Amino acid sequence: VIAKLPERERLGEHHFRLVDGNIPTLGPGEMLCRTILASIDPAQRVWLIPHGYRAEHREMALDDGNVAPIQDQDADAVADFTRRAQPLRDIRKTLEPGDVMMAFTLCEVIDSAGTDIPNGSVVASVAGWQEYAAVPAVWARPIEVHTALTHHLGALGITGLTAYFGIQLADPKPRETTVISAAAGAVGTIAGQLARLAGARVVGLTGSDDKAHMLERELGFDATVNYRRDSFAADLRAACPHGVDVYLDSVGGRVLETVLDALNVFGRVSCCGMVSEYDGMPPVGPANVPSAINVKRLRIQGYSVTDYIDDWPQAECRMGEWLRSGELKAIEDTIAGLENAPRALVGLLAGENVGKRTIRVGPDPS
Amino acid sequence: VIAKLPERERLGEHHFRLVDGNIPTLGPGEMLCRTILASIDPAQRVWLIPHGYRAEHREMALDDGNVAPIQDQDADAVADFTRRAQPLRDIRKTLEPGDVMMAFTLCEVIDSAGTDIPNGSVVASVAGWQEYAAVPAVWARPIEVHTALTHHLGALGITGLTAYFGIQLADPKPRETTVISAAAGAVGTIAGQLARLAGARVVGLTGSDDKAHMLERELGFDATVNYRRDSFAADLRAACPHGVDVYLDSVGGRVLETVLDALNVFGRVSCCGMVSEYDGMPPVGPANVPSAINVKRLRIQGYSVTDYIDDWPQAECRMGEWLRSGELKAIEDTIAGLENAPRALVGLLAGENVGKRTIRVGPDPS
Repeated sequence: VIAKLPERERLGEHHFRLVDGNIPTLGPGEMLCRTILASIDPAQRVWLIPHGYRAEHREMALDDGNVAPIQDQDADAVADFTRRAQPLRDIRKTLEPGDVMMAFTLCEVIDSAGTDIPNGSVVASVAGWQEYAAVPAVWARPIEVHTALTHHLGALGITGLTAYFGIQLADPKPRETTVISAAAGAVGTIAGQLARLAGARVVGLTGSDDKAHMLERELGFDATVNYRRDSFAADLRAACPHGVDVYLDSVGGRVLETVLDALNVFGRVSCCGMVSEYDGMPPVGPANVPSAINVKRLRIQGYSVTDYIDDWPQAECRMGEWLRSGELKAIEDTIAGLENAPRALVGLLAGENVGKRTIRVGPDPS
Repeated sequence: VIAKLPERERLGEHHFRLVDGNIPTLGPGEMLCRTILASIDPAQRVWLIPHGYRAEHREMALDDGNVAPIQDQDADAVADFTRRAQPLRDIRKTLEPGDVMMAFTLCEVIDSAGTDIPNGSVVASVAGWQEYAAVPAVWARPIEVHTALTHHLGALGITGLTAYFGIQLADPKPRETTVISAAAGAVGTIAGQLARLAGARVVGLTGSDDKAHMLERELGFDATVNYRRDSFAADLRAACPHGVDVYLDSVGGRVLETVLDALNVFGRVSCCGMVSEYDGMPPVGPANVPSAINVKRLRIQGYSVTDYIDDWPQAECRMGEWLRSGELKAIEDTIAGLENAPRALVGLLAGENVGKRTIRVGPDPS
C-alpha cells in the first residue's frame, strides 16, 4: 500500500509499506481474483503525483468549471482498457496514502460471483499490488492464453501494443532512420524490432553498454547511442549519418531536445510518454520544439494505446505471429515476490530494467 | 539595402539605408523587372539573423559535415517558390550588410531578354526592396491577373495560401473551436474566415481592441481574445467554453504555451511560424509541449506553403471563388513608397499591421 505520496522528490521504497489483510469480500458486480503477474510501468509514477502538484506537472489542465474537463491520459488508459470510464477515474482521483498501489495485472478468476466470466479464466485488469482483489467484472478483460503469460502482459500487452501503434503512427519507410528512446525498455525493445521489420534502419537510445550490446546482438538494432554520455548529441549524429526520419519518444526532456535537433525535414515523432519528467521536480521543457516543428515541418503526435482499442485484436494477432515465427523476441525481466514491487518500480524509473518488467505474485493456473 | 544586421536586438529602421543606384545590367538568363508591390513578411526578420546566431536561434541545425544538411525553411520557401532550389539558397547565405533587402514581390517584366516570359507580364518573384531588378527567369512565376494585384500578393499569394494549407492540415470540423494566432495579420485574417467557412467556431487572438472589433464585425470571428492582457489564459478559456480543438500557430512562445493548456484531447495544431521568437534574443521554448502532446494526444504539424506547391493552382482557384462571392474578404494594409519599407517591417513585427501589409513601389501596369 502507499505509505506516503512523493512530494517533489524521487520515488523511494519508503513510499510504500507491506501489509497483511484479509481476502476481500465482494460487492455487487465484483469478482474475486488472484493476482498472477503485476506489471511495473513508468505510468505508475504519474499516478503517485499528489493532486495538488498535477497542474504544476501539467499532467492535467486545471478544471475551473468554466471549461470542459480535460481528459486525463492515465485515468483514460485504465478506463478505456475496460471500456468503462468512470469507475477507474474515481479510483485515480482517490489514490491516497493507505490505498493499495494501482497496477495493471493478469489475474485468475477465483469466484466469478455470477458474472459472465467463468471461474479459472485469466483476465487482464488493474487489481494492483495485492494477492487477492475484488475486481468489478467491467474492469476485467478475459485473455485467450496462447503463449507465456508474461508475453500477454508485455509484447502482447499494454507495452507491446504501445510500441505497435507508435510505429504504425510514425510509419517508418524502408531505409529511413528510426530512433527509439528507452530502447531496452518494454516499449523500446518491441518498437525497435517492429521498425526493423518495416525495413527501417533502427538506432536505439539506451543508458548502458550492456543494454546496447543486447539490442545490437539479440534484437537486430543497427546502432545504439548512450544518452547518458556528454557526447550524446555528437554520438547520435554519428550513428545517424543521414539524419533521423522517425522518433518514438517515451522520455521527453533533454533526450527529446537532442533528437529534435537531429531530425530531418518532414520527420515524424510519436510520443507515448515522458518518463524523464515523471520522477522529481516539475519539468523544464525542451527549448527547441517550436523552431524544430516549424523549420523542419515535423509531425509530432501524442497517442495512447487506449486510443486504438478497436484495433487491439488485429495487432495482438500480428504480434503473436511474429513472436511464434521468431521475428520478434520478447525480452522480459520478471521478479518474483510481491514484496519486491516497490524496489522494482524505483529501479525501473532509474533505468535498471531490461525489457518488460513484471512482478510474479502467484503461480500460473495450469 | 541592409546597413547592419541586428545582433541580439530588435530590428530598427537604422538597420537599413536608402541608396540610389543604376538600373542593373542583365546577366545570362536574367530579365529586367520593375517592382510593383513588395510584400512585408515576418519571415524577413529571420533572413536578417546573422549566420553566427542561426544555431543559437535554432533556425538551422549545425552542419558538421557528418550529417546530411538540414534544409532551411526560409531558403526553401524562396527556392521551392520558383522550383529551383540552389540559386536562392545562395542568396540567403550571402545576405550581408550592403545587400538589397530580400522580399517577395510582384513585378512587371520590362525586358525579358530572350527568356520565355513576355515583356509586360506580371510575375511573382523575390526582387527585393528595389525599383528595378535583374531577376533570373527561373525565379519568376507568371501571374494571371484576375483581381486587384494586392490580392495576388495577399489572399491569393504566399500568406493566403499559408492560411489555406494550415486550415486544410488541421481540418476543423463543424462546431469545433478553432483558435487563430495573430488573427488580424495576413495569414490570420484569411485562416479565420476559412475555418468559419468550414463550419467551425472561430476565436481570434489579437493584440488590440480595434483589431478585435474588426475581426468580429467584418470577418465573422465568433470571439476574440487579447493576448497582451495578464488575464489572457483565463480570457481564452472563457472564450472557448468547450476547449480548443484546432490551433493555427504562427507565433510560438508564450501564446503557444497558453493555447496548449487549453487544447482538448486529440487537438490539432498547424504551425507555420513563430514570430514571437524572431525579433531579439534567442527564444526560451514553452515548457509544456511534451506533456501537452502526451496527455492530450495532440497532433502538431509544422508546414510550409511551399510543401504544397503542386496544390497551389487548385487552392488559388477556390480562394478566388470565395473572394468573388464575398464569402472571403481580403483585408489589406498597403503603404506607398519604397522608402517606407523598413518602417513597415519594424511595425509589422510590433503587430501594428491589419491584414496583408505590402509596399507599393510603382504603379500597376494597365
